[in-house]
Amino acid sequence: MKLDNIRKILNDVAGGKLSSDTAMKKLGSLSFEDIEFAKLDHHRALRTGVPEVIFAPGKTDRQIITICEHMQKAGSDILITRVGKSTFVKLKRKFKGIKYNEIAKIIYEPRDKKALVSNKIIAVVSAGTADMNVAEEAAITSEVFGARVERVYDIGIAGIHRLLAYQDRLCEASVVIVVAGMEGALASAVGGLVPAPVIAVPTSIGYGASFGGLAALLSMLNSCAPGVTVVNIDNGFGAAMAALKMVKIMERKSR
Amino acid sequence: MKLDNIRKILNDVAGGKLSSDTAMKKLGSLSFEDIEFAKLDHHRALRTGVPEVIFAPGKTDRQIITICEHMQKAGSDILITRVGKSTFVKLKRKFKGIKYNEIAKIIYEPRDKKALVSNKIIAVVSAGTADMNVAEEAAITSEVFGARVERVYDIGIAGIHRLLAYQDRLCEASVVIVVAGMEGALASAVGGLVPAPVIAVPTSIGYGASFGGLAALLSMLNSCAPGVTVVNIDNGFGAAMAALKMVKIMERKSR
Amino acid sequence: MKLDNIRKILNDVAGGKLSSDTAMKKLGSLSFEDIEFAKLDHHRALRTGVPEVIFAPGKTDRQIITICEHMQKAGSDILITRVGKSTFVKLKRKFKGIKYNEIAKIIYEPRDKKALVSNKIIAVVSAGTADMNVAEEAAITSEVFGARVERVYDIGIAGIHRLLAYQDRLCEASVVIVVAGMEGALASAVGGLVPAPVIAVPTSIGYGASFGGLAALLSMLNSCAPGVTVVNIDNGFGAAMAALKMVKIMERKSR
Amino acid sequence: MKLDNIRKILNDVAGGKLSSDTAMKKLGSLSFEDIEFAKLDHHRALRTGVPEVIFAPGKTDRQIITICEHMQKAGSDILITRVGKSTFVKLKRKFKGIKYNEIAKIIYEPRDKKALVSNKIIAVVSAGTADMNVAEEAAITSEVFGARVERVYDIGIAGIHRLLAYQDRLCEASVVIVVAGMEGALASAVGGLVPAPVIAVPTSIGYGASFGGLAALLSMLNSCAPGVTVVNIDNGFGAAMAALKMVKIMERKSR
Amino acid sequence: MKLDNIRKILNDVAGGKLSSDTAMKKLGSLSFEDIEFAKLDHHRALRTGVPEVIFAPGKTDRQIITICEHMQKAGSDILITRVGKSTFVKLKRKFKGIKYNEIAKIIYEPRDKKALVSNKIIAVVSAGTADMNVAEEAAITSEVFGARVERVYDIGIAGIHRLLAYQDRLCEASVVIVVAGMEGALASAVGGLVPAPVIAVPTSIGYGASFGGLAALLSMLNSCAPGVTVVNIDNGFGAAMAALKMVKIMERKSR
Amino acid sequence: MKLDNIRKILNDVAGGKLSSDTAMKKLGSLSFEDIEFAKLDHHRALRTGVPEVIFAPGKTDRQIITICEHMQKAGSDILITRVGKSTFVKLKRKFKGIKYNEIAKIIYEPRDKKALVSNKIIAVVSAGTADMNVAEEAAITSEVFGARVERVYDIGIAGIHRLLAYQDRLCEASVVIVVAGMEGALASAVGGLVPAPVIAVPTSIGYGASFGGLAALLSMLNSCAPGVTVVNIDNGFGAAMAALKMVKIMERKSR
Amino acid sequence: MKLDNIRKILNDVAGGKLSSDTAMKKLGSLSFEDIEFAKLDHHRALRTGVPEVIFAPGKTDRQIITICEHMQKAGSDILITRVGKSTFVKLKRKFKGIKYNEIAKIIYEPRDKKALVSNKIIAVVSAGTADMNVAEEAAITSEVFGARVERVYDIGIAGIHRLLAYQDRLCEASVVIVVAGMEGALASAVGGLVPAPVIAVPTSIGYGASFGGLAALLSMLNSCAPGVTVVNIDNGFGAAMAALKMVKIMERKSR
Amino acid sequence: MKLDNIRKILNDVAGGKLSSDTAMKKLGSLSFEDIEFAKLDHHRALRTGVPEVIFAPGKTDRQIITICEHMQKAGSDILITRVGKSTFVKLKRKFKGIKYNEIAKIIYEPRDKKALVSNKIIAVVSAGTADMNVAEEAAITSEVFGARVERVYDIGIAGIHRLLAYQDRLCEASVVIVVAGMEGALASAVGGLVPAPVIAVPTSIGYGASFGGLAALLSMLNSCAPGVTVVNIDNGFGAAMAALKMVKIMERKSR
Repeated sequence: MKLDNIRKILNDVAGGKLSSDTAMKKLGSLSFEDIEFAKLDHHRALRTGVPEVIFAPGKTDRQIITICEHMQKAGSDILITRVGKSTFVKLKRKFKGIKYNEIAKIIYEPRDKKALVSNKIIAVVSAGTADMNVAEEAAITSEVFGARVERVYDIGIAGIHRLLAYQDRLCEASVVIVVAGMEGALASAVGGLVPAPVIAVPTSIGYGASFGGLAALLSMLNSCAPGVTVVNIDNGFGAAMAALKMVKIMERKSR
Repeated sequence: MKLDNIRKILNDVAGGKLSSDTAMKKLGSLSFEDIEFAKLDHHRALRTGVPEVIFAPGKTDRQIITICEHMQKAGSDILITRVGKSTFVKLKRKFKGIKYNEIAKIIYEPRDKKALVSNKIIAVVSAGTADMNVAEEAAITSEVFGARVERVYDIGIAGIHRLLAYQDRLCEASVVIVVAGMEGALASAVGGLVPAPVIAVPTSIGYGASFGGLAALLSMLNSCAPGVTVVNIDNGFGAAMAALKMVKIMERKSR
Repeated sequence: MKLDNIRKILNDVAGGKLSSDTAMKKLGSLSFEDIEFAKLDHHRALRTGVPEVIFAPGKTDRQIITICEHMQKAGSDILITRVGKSTFVKLKRKFKGIKYNEIAKIIYEPRDKKALVSNKIIAVVSAGTADMNVAEEAAITSEVFGARVERVYDIGIAGIHRLLAYQDRLCEASVVIVVAGMEGALASAVGGLVPAPVIAVPTSIGYGASFGGLAALLSMLNSCAPGVTVVNIDNGFGAAMAALKMVKIMERKSR
Repeated sequence: MKLDNIRKILNDVAGGKLSSDTAMKKLGSLSFEDIEFAKLDHHRALRTGVPEVIFAPGKTDRQIITICEHMQKAGSDILITRVGKSTFVKLKRKFKGIKYNEIAKIIYEPRDKKALVSNKIIAVVSAGTADMNVAEEAAITSEVFGARVERVYDIGIAGIHRLLAYQDRLCEASVVIVVAGMEGALASAVGGLVPAPVIAVPTSIGYGASFGGLAALLSMLNSCAPGVTVVNIDNGFGAAMAALKMVKIMERKSR
Repeated sequence: MKLDNIRKILNDVAGGKLSSDTAMKKLGSLSFEDIEFAKLDHHRALRTGVPEVIFAPGKTDRQIITICEHMQKAGSDILITRVGKSTFVKLKRKFKGIKYNEIAKIIYEPRDKKALVSNKIIAVVSAGTADMNVAEEAAITSEVFGARVERVYDIGIAGIHRLLAYQDRLCEASVVIVVAGMEGALASAVGGLVPAPVIAVPTSIGYGASFGGLAALLSMLNSCAPGVTVVNIDNGFGAAMAALKMVKIMERKSR
Repeated sequence: MKLDNIRKILNDVAGGKLSSDTAMKKLGSLSFEDIEFAKLDHHRALRTGVPEVIFAPGKTDRQIITICEHMQKAGSDILITRVGKSTFVKLKRKFKGIKYNEIAKIIYEPRDKKALVSNKIIAVVSAGTADMNVAEEAAITSEVFGARVERVYDIGIAGIHRLLAYQDRLCEASVVIVVAGMEGALASAVGGLVPAPVIAVPTSIGYGASFGGLAALLSMLNSCAPGVTVVNIDNGFGAAMAALKMVKIMERKSR
Repeated sequence: MKLDNIRKILNDVAGGKLSSDTAMKKLGSLSFEDIEFAKLDHHRALRTGVPEVIFAPGKTDRQIITICEHMQKAGSDILITRVGKSTFVKLKRKFKGIKYNEIAKIIYEPRDKKALVSNKIIAVVSAGTADMNVAEEAAITSEVFGARVERVYDIGIAGIHRLLAYQDRLCEASVVIVVAGMEGALASAVGGLVPAPVIAVPTSIGYGASFGGLAALLSMLNSCAPGVTVVNIDNGFGAAMAALKMVKIMERKSR
Repeated sequence: MKLDNIRKILNDVAGGKLSSDTAMKKLGSLSFEDIEFAKLDHHRALRTGVPEVIFAPGKTDRQIITICEHMQKAGSDILITRVGKSTFVKLKRKFKGIKYNEIAKIIYEPRDKKALVSNKIIAVVSAGTADMNVAEEAAITSEVFGARVERVYDIGIAGIHRLLAYQDRLCEASVVIVVAGMEGALASAVGGLVPAPVIAVPTSIGYGASFGGLAALLSMLNSCAPGVTVVNIDNGFGAAMAALKMVKIMERKSR
């Protein structure tokens, strides 16, 4: 909770508009809801600009449905990541409007195209076809939360002319998400060509010594190109969240 | 080189304004300068919005001076990172205007305060006093290239009320750079409180099992908070470069 | 075996109450029972305050049943960890009173509520819903061996107000077990807020670079908060054992 | 800051004893002091039972002196860890009462022997003579903050009869800190012999494949003995802090 | 695209043979084909001497078939690595001439024996029978692209006389590919015996501390024998590609 | 091949007893047999005192049967490790005398009890019941090749009195194989108690931070006890081979 | 020793030209020389095409001089790597013709330019100025042993136009050695552009998470470009040896 | 202490020859001596066949001298490993007979040549000259404790004929210690050639990816040759201790 709210509550108490007991309750309960096995953070969107989403692994279908019911009641959008099709089939009965993307393994509520939160472009670039599920996790998450997305897939560094052919389009973007496995070198190549910040997503695609994406991760962290930052292995979702924060804050009136 | 330039050259050749020999030379030499042991990338600023800088480790003082001379001739600003004081003393004789920051270990040309490239704020936050040299590398680099910087140091997570006291100020920033060693948890805490994207910089500060910053690095990559991206261990410079790209692209007219 | 027992045996031998042959046998056999593939350590509870339990992985159902029979004969409580439901079904036929907890994957003999070994509170805190099976392993183990447990789940650091809302309750506890995956930062945040020692349990929940819990483990080992100690990844059982030793020794008359 | 304080402030505001402006300031400043490069957490002792201390690495002598001046003014005890003798010589001029322990590399203010915070015993056990500086860091820190300490050094597992000879004395302790490098097996052996919780401190002592203490760290985390928790490599200080929290909370009236 | 091509296009534009628009198109499209989820690099063979192949993992059968159709249209040979038999069965219906090698898990178009690109020999040596699938991936790939292959399997270093017996035959080869798991020492032994360069392929065969081939990989990278270079774990394909480039460039007229 | 043999062949050639062609053949073929996918090292027993065995992983049943046929023809004993029961069922039809041990996963030809190669004792000690399959791999291999084996299982260090009770029996052994997972401390404890050399076998048994046996491996390599050497994780077979070489060489006439 | 030599000796013995005693001596001593602390492998050049060189670390100046004396007597060229200037000063007195290269830290005997072993080109490419000492180790070693070398330094991937400008020259080479630290991506970019095999040399240049060159090493091993093989970190010498074997074998008459 | 001693004490107590008080003292003090910072294990030789030695790192000269005085009084031989020359100079004044070996960095009391504990041979083999200090640590330790040692240095696998030339001599040994850095392959080669057990000692000699000896360590642990066991990196001393236990137990009368 932001200090502005505390000040308002204090003023209300001082002005006699609020008892101190009610004030205590507000301080304690405004911000999250306790449903036994979870504490739902409904005002995260207010605080950080991006809403709470559901990370499915380790949760039972029952738990996911309960969380969705509470989120819907609280007026939050539903987005579930890393979720299997069988869970979607169950949820579909309760939550009519939801859709499922099999490549990205995401359940989401589609958004009206016109309701973009920003007309800045988030470019999602991938090195190979095998990186596509991670790239789509980033692209769909971005779209669900209202961003314009430009996809450019399979332009890995072994054929660098493919990347150069898209340089102009990439220069239009306000953020570029680069998804790459193996040696992850695409992030550096893009970072050296575009004015936008680059969010690099290492993937776990590769032979033995990729060690589940470690090679691409280290490669991206050591990028010699300026303005490259990195998220976790296969974390297309996290890249989208960072990109969304960037395009949203660009819309804020300058302070 | 961007395709726009190629098209212009092609048009000039087609229009007879340019011989194809001269065109070839332009294609080969416009963009960098060959000085034996280095190929200076003078038009990087044009391409990526951020200029080439000199990373000192592994370069002799003689090489650094030669590079500076060529950069100065090309009209580029001088910024040298990870550089010792003795090198500064030698350079000072040749390049009068330069300054040295001992904490950040940076040689730079100071910039006229009014010439800000953006009035967006880059907040630089550190977890402990021991992280200050990395934080200052980020802060000074940002300032040298024209950004407004807000410093908030030593607000690590062991006393979380310190962070909460600065929440409002951090919410003003357009980007927040979080510098932390040990368990690096500050990045997650900040990421959950502010609307701006967070660039996390792990530092090598810590006891044995920090393994030179690996603990903080992994912690930050696994952040449960939205919008946290990560750069290399102790890489305050890299964080500044990403932050600069962000605030600069915010100034661009929407496309 | 403690030296007190040796002295007693020596005195008995000196006083003619015991032949030296019988003394030898006592020295050799008092403390454990040899059942071919296992040596049951029946007097561990006496020595360390916590009884021997059965760690199921790598043992056949047949071996588990044999061990249970000998433990029951020796008057020890049965607690089996990391055990599947199918094993429970088989054991249930032989050992009527036992129960199974599916989340914690524990078989246990329920304990009469009044027979608490201590009225000190062990708080079990988790960062996310996905950490719940490890948290429950800790909570149930603590309860089976006679402790009072307070559960507070899903208060991870991305929404720090959730944790602050429970600060008072956590300050009541005599030990706090913090269960967290991903960046494991909750342990540091709790460590900075409560007077009780904190036992941190890293979990294997997370994206790629959590490396099976390594990220949370290193994060917790590097905690900047005072009084945080760490157990193995996903080792809710081990945390409970340490917490039990703490609350039990608090009950001991001061020496 | 604890919610109790917030309630008190709210009540005072409601009762007209406090203006809301003053209340805001209190909420912001009660708990720490801002001295440019550091935010001193003076009320940590109140909150967690253990005071803030100064971790010297990465801090200049000048910064350390400034911090000490503010801590002394705030009535906090001075304890500085990982600090060289030359710093002590400088500080000695300003802060008369301080002492230096060369083995533990600690600067501290000696405490009146009678003023023990608890008469519970913290046993500090080491495997070899080479582990002594870490063991002394734990022992001295414990003593400075008012605990009774029992030292038992060089009883490593290669001669297990040495450990057995001290079993009785170790059973008297309320907490046992076990300091060991190489294979770190002493923690398991002690954990199987005593009723007290064991805090294991891996040290960086060892041949090549100890990898700076990693071998002992992993060994201790995988301990098969009940009630063993672990702190960072060479972190004698952290072990003492956890032990202190334990003995202090034992003194608290049962709730 | 090579600069020669650019010069030719420039000259054509200058000579009026080509409009600048057509030139732009050529620069953009000559070199790859965009099929939604992939950008096929048809002229890779021209540029690097070795054609593009299909790495199956992470691609659906549908995607593989689409890529094959485009490659066939473009006149490229089909080679698919790490592919299951079920995919072969589906492809077989569309692409009559293809074959499947079960050990190497490769789908390929057989090549007319006489059409060797070089009569230099690529020797493929393996340490054990368990390394054979990787060795066959190297051997078959080499043969499909026109090389002469000599296989020598199961001559690991535990019986060094087996290797010595083949020394003469190995000395005939122009490149030797050494495939070995466990300690991977065979690469060093061969490197010390033959005049040809050795390409070492570590395999993931081994007990626990082989860590999925890491032991053999490090062993080969640290080879004390001259002229040993290394490819990724289990990467028989990569070794073949490097060997092919070597024998092909030997055929080039000296410059 | 040993130099003695070369000299003999040379002498025979010099004496006209042997043509140089026949000599060449002998030098090349005496020592192994080439069966396409394998080179059988029949005289390994002569050279190293221990025969060649078959490591099943990565070999097809067909290949295993072929190798067995050639080994039987050459008069070698059959021992197959890490082999499934289904393979045994197939082999049983061809090779009547063979047996299968399900715990050790070994196929072997039983040996007449009287035909011991040595009456020295190999003790096989395990820390826990879960380590038994590795311990049995060591024990059965030792017995098949003619050694006397003494088994002592489940005497891990958490109850050190169990180990002390067997000290006398362990002191009888000429070699002690210690099999332990988790922290692997048993090797050090045994190493400090017995005169025999200790071969330590780390197992992959343990919670998360055992990292597949790495913790026990490092622990054993860093043993502070004298005379402890280590083999690969879960490599009971390797430990047996080393132990067999030791007891066999003890039987050799002193030189 | 090659089997050809054995046959010749055998024939000589058979023909009475050689006693079997002399034959034995030849077999034992032809190939190396025993000088107490070293066994000099004089005929390595014959066997592998590249001569033995001296790796200085861990050797005393005295030992280096002794080895040089024996190598000179045997007619071998002297090349010493990783050697300090002070050693050169001492050697210079004894071995007049030698030279020292400070960047590469190599002592060598200069070679007559005309005496090239091949007119094939070895291109040595580096990503940054800081990689130059490793690049020079490769270049000088290649030249000393008779190769033509083409240097192209500082064309890292952050400014990819620099690399493209040299594409034509790199296409002339028969082998390309790519030296790069940080993310090591240059190897992949070059591998996708040239027909020659690429030998990648990772360097230890980089920030924290380069982990002493590990990042570049893994990146290069995972290269998505065809024909890239890798040598050890900073091993410019090893790359040169492999390149030399390649160009030498190209000169061999086809077999 | 062994159970035999306990029985004797018990019998003496039963027979009235010993009071139980005296018996208690004997049980507690027979076996080690407490000198404040160390507990000297004087009867280790009795128990394990090898005496306690002093590992110098982390001990002050003062502590080393004190330990030596007590060991001398107790009649134990002095052996100090990893010790600098300056310490030797100080000790020399007090302990006349001691000697110092600069390569092995060992202080020791020379032993009368005739007093061999066994005439079995311990062969110490090294791969390169740079491994000599570790090899000498093994050789000297073995000699000081009474073994016959055969040294064969610099016979690494890159010139395998050097190893073959010594095969006969190595076959004479009862134990072979193989010392090797880089890829450590020599251990496997020797293991496949000799009947004796092989103790492999990885050294930290190597380029970057040896990672301080990790490459050789893993290589040796994964040895495909029978009878190879491994000790810690650079641990020549540990190898000697294991070898000594082997040759000593060979001298024991068969049981």
